[in-house]
Amino acid sequence: MPKLREVGEFEALRRLIDARRPGSGVVIGPGDDAAVLAPGSGREIVVTTDALVEGRHFLPEWLEPPARGARLATMNLSDLAAMAAEPRWATLSLGLRQDHDLDALLELQRGVDETLAPLGAAIVGGNLTAVEGSEWYDLALIGEVAAGAAWKRSGARAGDFIMVSGSPGRAGAGLRLARRLGEGARDPRWRSLIDAWRMPVARIALSRALLPTGAVRAAIDLSDGLAADLERMARASAVAVEVDLGALPVDPDLENAATELGIEAAALRLGASDDYELILAVAPGRDESIARAASEVGVSLHVIARAAKGSGVVWRGGPAAAGYDHFSS
Amino acid sequence: MPKLREVGEFEALRRLIDARRPGSGVVIGPGDDAAVLAPGSGREIVVTTDALVEGRHFLPEWLEPPARGARLATMNLSDLAAMAAEPRWATLSLGLRQDHDLDALLELQRGVDETLAPLGAAIVGGNLTAVEGSEWYDLALIGEVAAGAAWKRSGARAGDFIMVSGSPGRAGAGLRLARRLGEGARDPRWRSLIDAWRMPVARIALSRALLPTGAVRAAIDLSDGLAADLERMARASAVAVEVDLGALPVDPDLENAATELGIEAAALRLGASDDYELILAVAPGRDESIARAASEVGVSLHVIARAAKGSGVVWRGGPAAAGYDHFSS
Repeated sequence: MPKLREVGEFEALRRLIDARRPGSGVVIGPGDDAAVLAPGSGREIVVTTDALVEGRHFLPEWLEPPARGARLATMNLSDLAAMAAEPRWATLSLGLRQDHDLDALLELQRGVDETLAPLGAAIVGGNLTAVEGSEWYDLALIGEVAAGAAWKRSGARAGDFIMVSGSPGRAGAGLRLARRLGEGARDPRWRSLIDAWRMPVARIALSRALLPTGAVRAAIDLSDGLAADLERMARASAVAVEVDLGALPVDPDLENAATELGIEAAALRLGASDDYELILAVAPGRDESIARAASEVGVSLHVIARAAKGSGVVWRGGPAAAGYDHFSS
Repeated sequence: MPKLREVGEFEALRRLIDARRPGSGVVIGPGDDAAVLAPGSGREIVVTTDALVEGRHFLPEWLEPPARGARLATMNLSDLAAMAAEPRWATLSLGLRQDHDLDALLELQRGVDETLAPLGAAIVGGNLTAVEGSEWYDLALIGEVAAGAAWKRSGARAGDFIMVSGSPGRAGAGLRLARRLGEGARDPRWRSLIDAWRMPVARIALSRALLPTGAVRAAIDLSDGLAADLERMARASAVAVEVDLGALPVDPDLENAATELGIEAAALRLGASDDYELILAVAPGRDESIARAASEVGVSLHVIARAAKGSGVVWRGGPAAAGYDHFSS
């Protein structure tokens, strides 16, 4: 298993390019100065970027290379899901130590590739740089959406139902368990929470199913925890969001984790957690049909709040909780 | 001058977003989950990514924050110039230490912004991550080109004139002088070479002027040195490139630097150097009109080689020189 130092940048890039699946709409692919891509007629493009930094966003012992790649893809896919965009093309920029194993690098890319491919996207370009400290993996992802159809954070209006997919807080609970229990968190009883943290799924299928209904007025993905991301939607939409804490989905795993960690379950539900679920503002009276459309793609969707005149997040039935700030915490 | 640690990620991002110039064709700008952009009708998009890593791609004492930003933009702009694409939109992903000064960060972004803006491009999204070791700045740049019009590396045919803009080797000479002479390289006699290294310019204006002529059959940007990049074009186009070393532009600065460094001038002309000039394959008989079109945008263009049947780079009148491989050198 050769190291990057031994094979060199150009050979490593060639191996990476050879291993990639071809994408659709690619006029000129990897290997030229840039990739040339053909968006569909009447489509707008949707662009996001997010990075995974060793030691900061993942603990190497908890995330094998393919899962790192999958997670990197998911972080970016989730942004496109929140805009109701179809993922199409990605560039992968990597800062790697010279002792990085070439096979591990190929596995990392495979994780990205295999997460993107079923959703219709492919890696079309990239960059490789030697670093000395922590490694970093940076993805830029381009999607497409019909002109004017993208969801925004700012579209919620007073009266809208605020719905959330899945059960927020599970990823944060998994991370806290891994930090607290170390190897003990590999116990099967924590398996599903640990997996929610290690291997989140972006809600592309959900937004694809809901876009045609026309009932979604605003969306944001859950990357910092329910409290922080509800606050963002409230601010962007200039509405108050009145949360009914009693309406949060029942989740025995979170209750068990809270007991184990000696904290309130509400702190797990509302606090820092990158679940990559979606928060949606749904037109009044459309919540049940939307929940049915979601269940057809295997996703549960719960009304947890209403938008109202005013500002900020109003909590009913429990305490507030702060989001997570990478620099100040 | 607050540090990132003091202001926090979200406030730093807000300040960065507020400081950016607005772009054109931006349907939804920074601040949502992703940016939504409207390419022109009948246009293809062109995507590239490149990163600048502290200690690896720049020496902090030689490159102030605005010049780092400008250089990062130029590295990516150069890829679009080599495809004859119009730069439009960029995402900026940053890995920064928590003691990074907020004003220096704003200056870095200003360097990117002010390099992109006159060329019609703008930053539309980004990401901020705390790191502990070397800082890195990663840009993904999206451009546009009329469908089918992008230049490729692979279009050169036997008989084509191989032309190069400017005077390759100057950037590499500047870097070597800075490494060898330290502060002594700030002497005015080295000023223009040091600037060629510190503040390269991407040849967007040149490719914009030459695209309409239809005479350019292949292009590549000079990011690793003349020898390495000629070799790449030869391989991609499946032709031989016969270089007339006597035809390289005369450059007294390079001669002086070679004497100072105690090496052959040819090593500077052909070796590792990220000049961001363009190598072009031009249809026979079109070289003079192309050189005139270049001079109208203030760029010198010289015939240095001919494409011929065969493979690889054939040197006439001097020694070959190897390219630069980030991992193996």
